[in-house]
Amino acid sequence: MNPGKSIDIRGRKLGGETPLICSPLVGRTREHLLQEAAIVVAKQPDVIEWRVDYFGAIGDTTAVLDTGKALRAAIGDTPVIFTRRSSREGGESIAIGDEDVVRLYDAVGASGLVDFLDFEMGNDAEHLKRVVTNAHAQKTRVILSYHNFGYTPGLEFLVQRFLEAERLGGDVAKVAVMPRDRNDVLTLLAATAQAEAKARIPLISMSMGPLGALTRMVGGLFGSALSFAIGAGSSAPGQMPIADLKAVYSIIERARGGS
Amino acid sequence: MNPGKSIDIRGRKLGGETPLICSPLVGRTREHLLQEAAIVVAKQPDVIEWRVDYFGAIGDTTAVLDTGKALRAAIGDTPVIFTRRSSREGGESIAIGDEDVVRLYDAVGASGLVDFLDFEMGNDAEHLKRVVTNAHAQKTRVILSYHNFGYTPGLEFLVQRFLEAERLGGDVAKVAVMPRDRNDVLTLLAATAQAEAKARIPLISMSMGPLGALTRMVGGLFGSALSFAIGAGSSAPGQMPIADLKAVYSIIERARGGS
Repeated sequence: MNPGKSIDIRGRKLGGETPLICSPLVGRTREHLLQEAAIVVAKQPDVIEWRVDYFGAIGDTTAVLDTGKALRAAIGDTPVIFTRRSSREGGESIAIGDEDVVRLYDAVGASGLVDFLDFEMGNDAEHLKRVVTNAHAQKTRVILSYHNFGYTPGLEFLVQRFLEAERLGGDVAKVAVMPRDRNDVLTLLAATAQAEAKARIPLISMSMGPLGALTRMVGGLFGSALSFAIGAGSSAPGQMPIADLKAVYSIIERARGGS
Repeated sequence: MNPGKSIDIRGRKLGGETPLICSPLVGRTREHLLQEAAIVVAKQPDVIEWRVDYFGAIGDTTAVLDTGKALRAAIGDTPVIFTRRSSREGGESIAIGDEDVVRLYDAVGASGLVDFLDFEMGNDAEHLKRVVTNAHAQKTRVILSYHNFGYTPGLEFLVQRFLEAERLGGDVAKVAVMPRDRNDVLTLLAATAQAEAKARIPLISMSMGPLGALTRMVGGLFGSALSFAIGAGSSAPGQMPIADLKAVYSIIERARGGS
């Protein structure tokens, strides 16, 4: 990856030689979330993602912010991605509407508790604009994302998703798709490499499920700057344990050093 | 892989769920070769390849057969591939001509000391026919191979190399090519997967060098039945240590079991 595109985040480089490892938190209560955070942080992921669509009290902004504060206290300086994944893109059903989600994103962005907001490009255009603008006003970065749990679209479409994220003001572009065969897995890797040659922001990509699991290991070689791995609980199919992914990265680093 | 295509070889399955790991021997003398074999066999590769083009006494058939016997005694029941890699395809220069190599292959095949003869498809057509016919008469299997250390040909050409190996009577088809960019690495994987859907014999493939090293790890997911890894010495660029490859295979097996 072009080092000019990398993002320095609390001392970690998103877009450096080796992908960062991010572990999701999927606790439904504050108590569970903090228990989960303690387990996860002990495994030293580079980044933690709070999947707030799993959080039962998502409709109570004060509860979210208080829990966010407790989470920050528990995990210290680990960068955090704050994510409501919609049910359309593989997330949990939640009790509030999209307008309320945007208000929640505004409040969390303003709190300075998290480093990234992940927002789906499939959201309403006005909401997208507002989330990006408000986050940037608060110095919070935005990951604009595209997920397809049904299939893997064609190469050109995938390349466009990455570039569209940049055009819409995203600081990072994320594409996660489900393969139906091995060729779909290669398509996701090829699209990432093509997009990396054009994009000016770091990219995150993965092919999901058992078939796509290899992209979580080797995606970095095709331009993906971050890979999700299990610390305590999984948030998407195909994720592997942090220790396994770290072992693979060490082996890949040695192999890259070879002749 | 279609299990009907797998080959059972001294209790190991070539073409099973997980690729076999093969370590090369590149010793120049009998003494060095046996020292190397002792180191390699302790690391428990599934298969050992004797790269006889490194062997100084390649022109002395009696010396080759005696060394082969000592090698068999040293490595026990580990399957052996006997390979003269030509300098045209990345091997060492040797003191004998192609006609003598074919006579050597006949003698080694007849000895029953090895399980596979690797012969390049780029060889003279009469030599190819003779090696295949004589090996099969002796119940020795033949790997017909194609190597390109310069670049990665197109997808169709690569698929044809695998199928050509089958057409010529090979029991296994091997294709090893050098990538110039990441797309070449994906081309080799895609060609392997396409060929696997058509071929009736096990395939072995790899993209070489640091860029291609990932294919040594994940090639099995695209239909490659065997991967070369370093036991004592490397025989081609991009090979990684046996222990690293075994670790990756364990992790991939766990990930495939996931949902």
